Amino acid sequence: MKNTFGQSVSVTLFGESHGKAIGAVIDGLAPGIEVSEDFIESQLTKRRPAGKTGTARREADKFQILSGVFEGKTTGTPLCIIIPNEDTKSRDYLKTRFLARPGHADYTANCKYHGFEDYRGGGHFSGRITAALVAAGAIAISALRPKGIYIGTHVMRCAGVSDRKFENINSDLEKLNSLDFAVLDDTAKDKMIKEIEKAAADGDSVGGILETAVCGVPAGVGEPWFDTMESVLSHILFSIPAIKGVEFGAGFAAADMRGSEDNDDFIAENGKVITKTNHSGGINGGITNGMPIIIKCAVKPTPSIYKKQNTVDFSKGENAELLIEGRHDPAIIHRARVVVDSAVALTLCDMLSLRFGTDYLSGGSI
Amino acid sequence: MKNTFGQSVSVTLFGESHGKAIGAVIDGLAPGIEVSEDFIESQLTKRRPAGKTGTARREADKFQILSGVFEGKTTGTPLCIIIPNEDTKSRDYLKTRFLARPGHADYTANCKYHGFEDYRGGGHFSGRITAALVAAGAIAISALRPKGIYIGTHVMRCAGVSDRKFENINSDLEKLNSLDFAVLDDTAKDKMIKEIEKAAADGDSVGGILETAVCGVPAGVGEPWFDTMESVLSHILFSIPAIKGVEFGAGFAAADMRGSEDNDDFIAENGKVITKTNHSGGINGGITNGMPIIIKCAVKPTPSIYKKQNTVDFSKGENAELLIEGRHDPAIIHRARVVVDSAVALTLCDMLSLRFGTDYLSGGSI
Amino acid sequence: MKNTFGQSVSVTLFGESHGKAIGAVIDGLAPGIEVSEDFIESQLTKRRPAGKTGTARREADKFQILSGVFEGKTTGTPLCIIIPNEDTKSRDYLKTRFLARPGHADYTANCKYHGFEDYRGGGHFSGRITAALVAAGAIAISALRPKGIYIGTHVMRCAGVSDRKFENINSDLEKLNSLDFAVLDDTAKDKMIKEIEKAAADGDSVGGILETAVCGVPAGVGEPWFDTMESVLSHILFSIPAIKGVEFGAGFAAADMRGSEDNDDFIAENGKVITKTNHSGGINGGITNGMPIIIKCAVKPTPSIYKKQNTVDFSKGENAELLIEGRHDPAIIHRARVVVDSAVALTLCDMLSLRFGTDYLSGGSI
Amino acid sequence: MKNTFGQSVSVTLFGESHGKAIGAVIDGLAPGIEVSEDFIESQLTKRRPAGKTGTARREADKFQILSGVFEGKTTGTPLCIIIPNEDTKSRDYLKTRFLARPGHADYTANCKYHGFEDYRGGGHFSGRITAALVAAGAIAISALRPKGIYIGTHVMRCAGVSDRKFENINSDLEKLNSLDFAVLDDTAKDKMIKEIEKAAADGDSVGGILETAVCGVPAGVGEPWFDTMESVLSHILFSIPAIKGVEFGAGFAAADMRGSEDNDDFIAENGKVITKTNHSGGINGGITNGMPIIIKCAVKPTPSIYKKQNTVDFSKGENAELLIEGRHDPAIIHRARVVVDSAVALTLCDMLSLRFGTDYLSGGSI
Repeated sequence: MKNTFGQSVSVTLFGESHGKAIGAVIDGLAPGIEVSEDFIESQLTKRRPAGKTGTARREADKFQILSGVFEGKTTGTPLCIIIPNEDTKSRDYLKTRFLARPGHADYTANCKYHGFEDYRGGGHFSGRITAALVAAGAIAISALRPKGIYIGTHVMRCAGVSDRKFENINSDLEKLNSLDFAVLDDTAKDKMIKEIEKAAADGDSVGGILETAVCGVPAGVGEPWFDTMESVLSHILFSIPAIKGVEFGAGFAAADMRGSEDNDDFIAENGKVITKTNHSGGINGGITNGMPIIIKCAVKPTPSIYKKQNTVDFSKGENAELLIEGRHDPAIIHRARVVVDSAVALTLCDMLSLRFGTDYLSGGSI
Repeated sequence: MKNTFGQSVSVTLFGESHGKAIGAVIDGLAPGIEVSEDFIESQLTKRRPAGKTGTARREADKFQILSGVFEGKTTGTPLCIIIPNEDTKSRDYLKTRFLARPGHADYTANCKYHGFEDYRGGGHFSGRITAALVAAGAIAISALRPKGIYIGTHVMRCAGVSDRKFENINSDLEKLNSLDFAVLDDTAKDKMIKEIEKAAADGDSVGGILETAVCGVPAGVGEPWFDTMESVLSHILFSIPAIKGVEFGAGFAAADMRGSEDNDDFIAENGKVITKTNHSGGINGGITNGMPIIIKCAVKPTPSIYKKQNTVDFSKGENAELLIEGRHDPAIIHRARVVVDSAVALTLCDMLSLRFGTDYLSGGSI
Repeated sequence: MKNTFGQSVSVTLFGESHGKAIGAVIDGLAPGIEVSEDFIESQLTKRRPAGKTGTARREADKFQILSGVFEGKTTGTPLCIIIPNEDTKSRDYLKTRFLARPGHADYTANCKYHGFEDYRGGGHFSGRITAALVAAGAIAISALRPKGIYIGTHVMRCAGVSDRKFENINSDLEKLNSLDFAVLDDTAKDKMIKEIEKAAADGDSVGGILETAVCGVPAGVGEPWFDTMESVLSHILFSIPAIKGVEFGAGFAAADMRGSEDNDDFIAENGKVITKTNHSGGINGGITNGMPIIIKCAVKPTPSIYKKQNTVDFSKGENAELLIEGRHDPAIIHRARVVVDSAVALTLCDMLSLRFGTDYLSGGSI
Repeated sequence: MKNTFGQSVSVTLFGESHGKAIGAVIDGLAPGIEVSEDFIESQLTKRRPAGKTGTARREADKFQILSGVFEGKTTGTPLCIIIPNEDTKSRDYLKTRFLARPGHADYTANCKYHGFEDYRGGGHFSGRITAALVAAGAIAISALRPKGIYIGTHVMRCAGVSDRKFENINSDLEKLNSLDFAVLDDTAKDKMIKEIEKAAADGDSVGGILETAVCGVPAGVGEPWFDTMESVLSHILFSIPAIKGVEFGAGFAAADMRGSEDNDDFIAENGKVITKTNHSGGINGGITNGMPIIIKCAVKPTPSIYKKQNTVDFSKGENAELLIEGRHDPAIIHRARVVVDSAVALTLCDMLSLRFGTDYLSGGSI
């Protein structure tokens, strides 16, 4: 279904880096959910590049809600939100039109769209499109909170520096919410920023790992085949540019465990069933078990670097050299975390509505 | 869409471990594809437990094709293949009906199906259902080969032992095809089997990592949002029981690289565009670039172990102890590789048909 | 999605007229619904040809449920039901292999499947496949009844003879339930049968109109765009072979009305909102209003006739003459009514589960 | 999938009558299709109310393409087109907030959206949303023409007056293209307009029947189950407000025919297979046969009438009287024809792309 994702609650993305506007349509979201423009704004701010760690491109991200909100609340009909593009410098991109930037989609876009693609700034492949996802995700996050469902992501690793692990997830999520650069351990954060600046000075870039926790999802959501909770989450996560790995709970580390170590013992506690450990990341057999959902995403280093690279001029099929000028992000991982939160929130709205009906997230007294 | 996956070519799975039969319906596959019952049989044999490394359950896996094949070739209409269940010992499962096996779906199935689930042998959550996927996948593999598309998976790591990496992918894939226990390095294989037997002797189990390579997929397949090649592959892979992590190309290792290291330089070679390295795993911006697609899947250790475990009796909400008797697999990773191949093959049939039309895989002269 | 239909509750059909078996997979149906093999049998009997008005082909329709039912109730996982083919005379079809039967899919199937289609008895295009839909539909009907939702269809017109209109819908539905040849007015029924027999004697066939009523569907189900209740129902209805027209409420008759006549006045009655007339057929703006849903389907005359017809030998692209031997139905409309009921029931299960969640139809105390 | 329709080429609609803007996103359309703003404008003009036969509301329908078009051609990525709302008089709607207009969706919207719906001017249920479909459809029509596929719709019947039937379809389609009020017979047109004006003078409204012909669709497109060409077309057509009946070819008239009359004889003509008659409307067994696709849609009379009507105040559950003031359309059928053309065009783009691949409609030399 291409640029639309979700079955009961869906999101459709559109736009190019240098077109008139980017945007998103959320469909199927319950009526009566409060839509705070301030919260959308604050989420967009978290994604927006800032300071030395981001690109020089500055976007005010002045969004407009075109439909689906009435008297401050969702109507239940499609909500379209657009963000006009303002700070676009199209001239930068003309001279490298046919030089495939390594790590980018220029060449594959050309294979698919036969040269008709809008190549300026990566076009529809630009990370800028994630702003539309963040705007839509802000509304999904707003829908989940009244149901006691909270999502938060920290930069677990960046440029070889590791953050501390989640300890008390609830308070950690609250802390993350207030941070611009979402690292739980301040020392780690300073080291990461230093490494990012070092890479920037080298004309290079860095990657990292994002860890996400979701609390409050009821047990019994997800399918055995094929729409396991892991399947549906990974589907949207792997569509975020730069994500090349996704794992749940112990993930790849489980590969080296024995069953007796990996298995999470069940415990009855105050009439609730919980698990002692959470190697499964809150999901057994594709279905939530009520424990926090734990996801890790590998974010590759930003492919835009300020170094001479070997590549191909695909209009001629000849080898060429490329030095990309223009604005670069030495790191995007700290900005990507709010993109991940948004993707997860939209997916949970969908899975919960499918499971419990389209009124489940409604803000009204039904 | 639950137990159906795919848009142009889809697969539907059904069945329970101890029901009458399991099976699959493949729909949308092109007409004229040769269906070899011998090949289906050989793929099922690769999945079937054997020797000391597998469960004591023995299934002949006598499949029947009920529809969709005429005079040895696909008709283009839905192909239903069933595998009757024969060797089922239902009595084993009665006394532990309400004891949630750690690492299994017993508890979450109960949350979702309210006690109506067929609990015998894991029911629809049993790994047995993957036999139906393998049968369907065999036909998908048959459809891809005439187009020059080959898939192979090796046990890259098991119980802490590593196989060698892919070297010459084409000949490695050929080699894997002939192996029962798919490890490229025979010494590594022997060590793995020794570790599996050791775990079995301890009443325990082991996990590992599967690495898959796909050669011959043309450039230009996949979508920027949301149906990236990674998204769609991970969706089906994460629905295979025990898979808890998926990565493409360098995957999580890319998190510690700099952009200058991770970026794959493009090279013009004999009129073709290739890349020097393949950290992207053959996918840029969600779209294939013509290089081999490289996937790694983390397989958790089999949750069925022969040890006393702490758990909950969810009919009473009370803590309990559990010792699972019956047949166990100390490892399933060597059997899972053909399940991964099948899932990947079905997904590629779908993505290629969507991209190039429903006749693309047809065996006929069109 | 081809041979699979439905979003939350879906049905997948497979099989050919002369293959091993036909069947259906229902997925997403709530757990705990009672499955009565007797009721399935009785529905299949209603669809089966009988007496002088049907084809000479006799099928016992001995179905088998392969999965998804445990201890007499749905498990919530996919339910596969198959009906082996028994009475198949394949020789009949060989000599007319390339002669396109007028009104049939022989020619279009060849355009789509390039000659690989199973041509015997219409293959996957045979009306026989509707037996699988009826088996699946029987379970859907069983799921709806405990929620107070009842469906019934009568032969409103056949061979130029009209039945009386619905009067008291509830008692009319009950009456229809017990009839083999579903006509409300016995005199009309006798006339219809006489006309069918006359057509049969002429080697010809007749068509007609089916009228369906559904009672008990709650208000508020359906979407403004694109999944209006009419849209989703018509989608499945137009896939039933021979249906060439579908209308809701006044339908085509509304075209000649004025707004003041067509509009259904709303009335408050005992705390419920009803309408005075029901020209809208229970649907306003694509959403149910709580009144009975009224559907009419035009059924074309059976295309298999025992008369010489002009056609084309599509292997040569030459004109030819055709006299179809073998078994014919002079009318299928009286058998199609249970197919329509089944299609409507499956669709309502889907729409209700999407709206109210996957437990809505569950038979358990949740 | 609610407000999104289509599998390979999809359209998503959003907007409310009195919101900021309405719009559509087309996704999956091939790259390289020429986008003429003049043609979009001319299509919107055909839908726009004009003269005495339309509502007094006047919209300039100044659309903006936000994405998906680059240098005058489609890029292949999502195309968003919006039409800002300008001439909105919200005050009209406040005093009748809880009075369900007969024939409208006010009551059912309230059942579904629990009072959060934007009730002004029908909100998302307004016929105004069809302007977005027409804008999207104009691009779909542009994509089909270079493939030799032409679509046209005439008002076959309105207020009891009938137009002449299609004669030479190709030249009739060309004629329709140039008409504002699409009636083939000028005398019929004058009579219809007179009847519409008479109804308007009575404060009443009229309905009618639209007949659509599509030429040039290749044989072999559509599925046996469930996505027959009829199924998919009827799905989108029944989501157009006011359409309550859809038939293909002879449709309901076939119900009274005998098989020998209804069957379309095949004829070999200049190496092509055609049919002598076209009672099947160009579709056999759900699959196109290469003959023109013929569709008839019943359009109910506009429910907005200027007469006192009995209804219910659904905030109180009490009977009430209603006299709707404001702007009314005595007829919308002549405007709806371009909506039908658009819906059909979008569906064909989808079906053709699914069948022949995503490059099929591309304007480039591939």
